[in-house]
Amino acid sequence: MNLLLLEEADFVAADRAILRDRRLKHLQEVHRAEAGESLRVGLLGGQMGRGHLLRLNAQEAELEVELLQQAPPAKLPVTLLLALPRPKMLRRVLQTVASMGVPRLVLLNSYRVEKSFWQTPFLEPQAIREQLLLGLEQARDTLLPEVLIEKRFKPFVEDRLPQLVAGTRGLVGHPGEYPPCPRALSEPVTLAIGPEGGWIPYEIEKLTEAGLQPVQLGERILRVETAVSALLARLF
Amino acid sequence: MNLLLLEEADFVAADRAILRDRRLKHLQEVHRAEAGESLRVGLLGGQMGRGHLLRLNAQEAELEVELLQQAPPAKLPVTLLLALPRPKMLRRVLQTVASMGVPRLVLLNSYRVEKSFWQTPFLEPQAIREQLLLGLEQARDTLLPEVLIEKRFKPFVEDRLPQLVAGTRGLVGHPGEYPPCPRALSEPVTLAIGPEGGWIPYEIEKLTEAGLQPVQLGERILRVETAVSALLARLF
Repeated sequence: MNLLLLEEADFVAADRAILRDRRLKHLQEVHRAEAGESLRVGLLGGQMGRGHLLRLNAQEAELEVELLQQAPPAKLPVTLLLALPRPKMLRRVLQTVASMGVPRLVLLNSYRVEKSFWQTPFLEPQAIREQLLLGLEQARDTLLPEVLIEKRFKPFVEDRLPQLVAGTRGLVGHPGEYPPCPRALSEPVTLAIGPEGGWIPYEIEKLTEAGLQPVQLGERILRVETAVSALLARLF
Repeated sequence: MNLLLLEEADFVAADRAILRDRRLKHLQEVHRAEAGESLRVGLLGGQMGRGHLLRLNAQEAELEVELLQQAPPAKLPVTLLLALPRPKMLRRVLQTVASMGVPRLVLLNSYRVEKSFWQTPFLEPQAIREQLLLGLEQARDTLLPEVLIEKRFKPFVEDRLPQLVAGTRGLVGHPGEYPPCPRALSEPVTLAIGPEGGWIPYEIEKLTEAGLQPVQLGERILRVETAVSALLARLF
């Protein structure tokens, strides 16, 4: 937790916040924070600032909060389409996505996504939000990414994807005889990353029709989480 | 497991291998493999090829193995120095390092590495090897990275690091007012990545003296695992 993220509901006065949840626990157990300390804070959806820890005990922590005219770091100009990963990986990928500054994530079905993955409680809005918050705290960001869930590949790719791709460079990561993933782009990008086992040819065809060009990242097959950070670091 | 990694000890004849361990379990439970199937195999430390599954039961799997004159994918020209991550992260990082093709990893002490991290059983050679194998299987590689353990920062950085850096481009990832991490290098690199919380100024000073130039990857503070894949994807 490199940034203590505060929400409106934490405030008991304009410049006073009280914490009682996992953030309190983290302050005590990981930071081993003590009254008098000054912490980097951010208002969820807003500015960054400092928090002065007035008191801290097993029940709650009280902070005097000073928000500065300091914006969170810029987001990447990207919409990321991700074939739904297995639940354990999903949680980590959500953190990675939030920490790297992806503003919009689409979790998409694909032939090689196991049906059971869609049943995971980690897809509940509250569970998604929890992982995104961890990613924001890690990277010192205050703006939650938007997460869209698309359980049906074909209608999404045919009807909605073309509008998402319009005005962006569309790319789909896929191993094979494709051009290498481009580097250091400044234009907006729509990037699709497949499931473990990869997209099937039909999916590549449909994604290509919707405006995504297949690109590869070398011979090595990477885990989804590694591919996400590697592709984003290469692109921007 | 995108590659079934075989070891010399698995062979009962020149072209026959028998598996009884986690690979058997994986073939049955994840691949749901059946006799007659052909699998992508590699010989640990050697060539790639095909394995024809002759039989498979709860006790063992027998494969007819045909190794081809197909080399594993090229390694990255990098030596990676990593401040020892916390045990859970260490396991994942070892997989990431192996899957991305890092040929040599140095796990290094740093002021912000908690002393308890050095006590983890995940640092035992057998445990390290296990995670590296998972990374190789993921990326379809057969060559184990070399892992060096350096529990004392100063003697390593003063006495041994300069020789590692010689003839390479030395870089240390560090947030701050430094040049951005370079892109698309073809020269060999020695890259150091700090602990959660970062290197302390003394360490940056010593690493710089040893020939590593600080570079940054933007304002966002990334988890070690994400930083490893992002920096490697940016550099090469």
